[in-house]
Amino acid sequence: MDDQPLIAILGGGQLGRMLGLAAIPLGFRCRFLDPSPHAGAQQVGELVVGELDDPAALSAVAAGAVAVTYEWEGVPAASIEHLVREGHRVAPDQHALRASQHRGVEKAMFHSLKIATAPYVLVSTRDELRAAITTLGSPAILKTCTGGYDGKGQARIAGAHQAELDASAAAAWTTLTQDHEGPHDLVLEGVVPFDRELSVLAARAEDGTTVVYDLVHNTHVDGILSTSLAPAADCGPALQQQANEIATRVLDHLQYVGLIAIELFQVGGELIANEFAPRVHNSGHHTIEGAATSQFENHIRAIAALPLGDPSLRGYCAMMNAVGALPNRGAVLGLAGAHFHDYAKAPRAGRTVGHVNLLAASEPERAVLVKAYEAAVRSDD
Amino acid sequence: MDDQPLIAILGGGQLGRMLGLAAIPLGFRCRFLDPSPHAGAQQVGELVVGELDDPAALSAVAAGAVAVTYEWEGVPAASIEHLVREGHRVAPDQHALRASQHRGVEKAMFHSLKIATAPYVLVSTRDELRAAITTLGSPAILKTCTGGYDGKGQARIAGAHQAELDASAAAAWTTLTQDHEGPHDLVLEGVVPFDRELSVLAARAEDGTTVVYDLVHNTHVDGILSTSLAPAADCGPALQQQANEIATRVLDHLQYVGLIAIELFQVGGELIANEFAPRVHNSGHHTIEGAATSQFENHIRAIAALPLGDPSLRGYCAMMNAVGALPNRGAVLGLAGAHFHDYAKAPRAGRTVGHVNLLAASEPERAVLVKAYEAAVRSDD
Repeated sequence: MDDQPLIAILGGGQLGRMLGLAAIPLGFRCRFLDPSPHAGAQQVGELVVGELDDPAALSAVAAGAVAVTYEWEGVPAASIEHLVREGHRVAPDQHALRASQHRGVEKAMFHSLKIATAPYVLVSTRDELRAAITTLGSPAILKTCTGGYDGKGQARIAGAHQAELDASAAAAWTTLTQDHEGPHDLVLEGVVPFDRELSVLAARAEDGTTVVYDLVHNTHVDGILSTSLAPAADCGPALQQQANEIATRVLDHLQYVGLIAIELFQVGGELIANEFAPRVHNSGHHTIEGAATSQFENHIRAIAALPLGDPSLRGYCAMMNAVGALPNRGAVLGLAGAHFHDYAKAPRAGRTVGHVNLLAASEPERAVLVKAYEAAVRSDD
Repeated sequence: MDDQPLIAILGGGQLGRMLGLAAIPLGFRCRFLDPSPHAGAQQVGELVVGELDDPAALSAVAAGAVAVTYEWEGVPAASIEHLVREGHRVAPDQHALRASQHRGVEKAMFHSLKIATAPYVLVSTRDELRAAITTLGSPAILKTCTGGYDGKGQARIAGAHQAELDASAAAAWTTLTQDHEGPHDLVLEGVVPFDRELSVLAARAEDGTTVVYDLVHNTHVDGILSTSLAPAADCGPALQQQANEIATRVLDHLQYVGLIAIELFQVGGELIANEFAPRVHNSGHHTIEGAATSQFENHIRAIAALPLGDPSLRGYCAMMNAVGALPNRGAVLGLAGAHFHDYAKAPRAGRTVGHVNLLAASEPERAVLVKAYEAAVRSDD
């Protein structure tokens, strides 16, 4: 057993767990670093309980690993640099991680790659915020450059007249800065009247080979991903081609190794980049049964210097997130085409504790299956 | 983590390992009993090191389990009975296990269900063997009723004339009995001039619901499964219908819960039953990527009283067993449609250490992929 090459994973939540499930058949063993002794990934590997910024814990989890990766872009870049200094192969590397950790750096990267984004202005003082609102107009969204996720770290600014707008801006400023002394690290984004939220998943190997998955259509509820449809309906080849271009430019620019998820807005026939995650992603969970090679397996293949696998979808997928609590297992599995994914997490409001993949042979059948799923879950309440 | 319902599995080899990989996303944890501290299943669950006939070890592995199952039909029936006496839910139950452990009982069951078998005569003495050869003719195969697998526990009897036949019979007798005092528990089987070896996998839930997978065409080398093709080529609906009938009759007769594999011979348009295994089976490994629901998941669903999943194949599969040593992982994964399955076992001549599933969109493409695989594996030698 100890002969199996080791992959070290920073973070032992559901993404680590699903990475482990993909790594084991390929012949790897996994070791996870997580602050919680209850981390769900321990069912598929060894768990080191420790903080993600503790050098001793980092060295312990990575000892003997052929590759180190992470399931969360909140891992301190200094932790990655510590591991690189120790001679570890870490993928994706610290450049990709740093770019993903700062909205300003991320948007500047998109801009340099001629990838469209929402209009934005970096803001560090109240005066700069006032000027930015004048530039971008209302409504706009003020965001912290670092640390935001699932709709946290952002506040909407809007008003029908100047006084209302000023009050809204002041409230947003207070929410994000707690009125602490600056300078602050914020960005004001213009609101794009987008048609829908899409994402593109792609993987790149060390030799530059890249595979791109079909565009995914994502729906959020209360800032948390609720449903992903893949392939997204009504995606012509032109839209997918744009997504392929965006993914390839970002991956090549970062000399990226591993799987990436790029969140996009569709505005008419154009794609606008929102942000990227240097890791496997909730909007790629449909690939477990829904693609010839899952995002998890392709991430493992990439970081372990193995050839990437075919990203083709096997049909029409819907990924239904289970937020708060799991649906009834028996009711779900009674639906042909349903695949259950339990993350072994305690139920809690707002917490993603599992997902169900629905796999159908056509778009209309997918719609029917989604309705059947929703009915099954409802009747179970 | 300890909140996840527990499934106890007797045996912690590759079948246990793949059962664990299927059980985890469904929300279960697994505990395995195996005599080896190196058992490959420990990557996906807790391992209790102990003998499969040790009551204390059996009680320990099953403590708190919602269901107990096994990956090997060599588990002593007394072990299952011990667990049943302790109040455990064991599936498949001891009746199925006992029938699979004795060729005489197994063949009598097939006969009672009007399922054709090769002609056979039970034999316990040299005189009975002589009479049986007269009845069945030459060639014939003498087999021990218990304990044989992978071609072990059997000897072929043939001769061009009586003296040669007598010598062959005497040699077979010595091989299987070591000339110990009888009575012995043997069976002489007539050799059926079969066209090919097939198998059918099926699962039955507690409520009697049954799903049957498409017929598989198996090729053995030195008595060990080498390749499985699913669906088997040239299987008309009539042949599949026969297989469905055979599987359903056996499952219903045994009031079976779980996955079963029935090995068959095809003779023209007829299927003849050879033997069955009350467990997941090497000839069902293609179902991991090749079917909507794998044999492993359907076994777990059945024993955990969950609805069974769709057994439909996703394409044209070939399962290439890795016997002795694994092929080069990178070379295999360079083939589109190849899926690697490493059992974490030390290489050894004659030992199955992994398999590769090849998945294609058509029968001709499957043939091309099999050739490409064979070339990739050869160039790696």
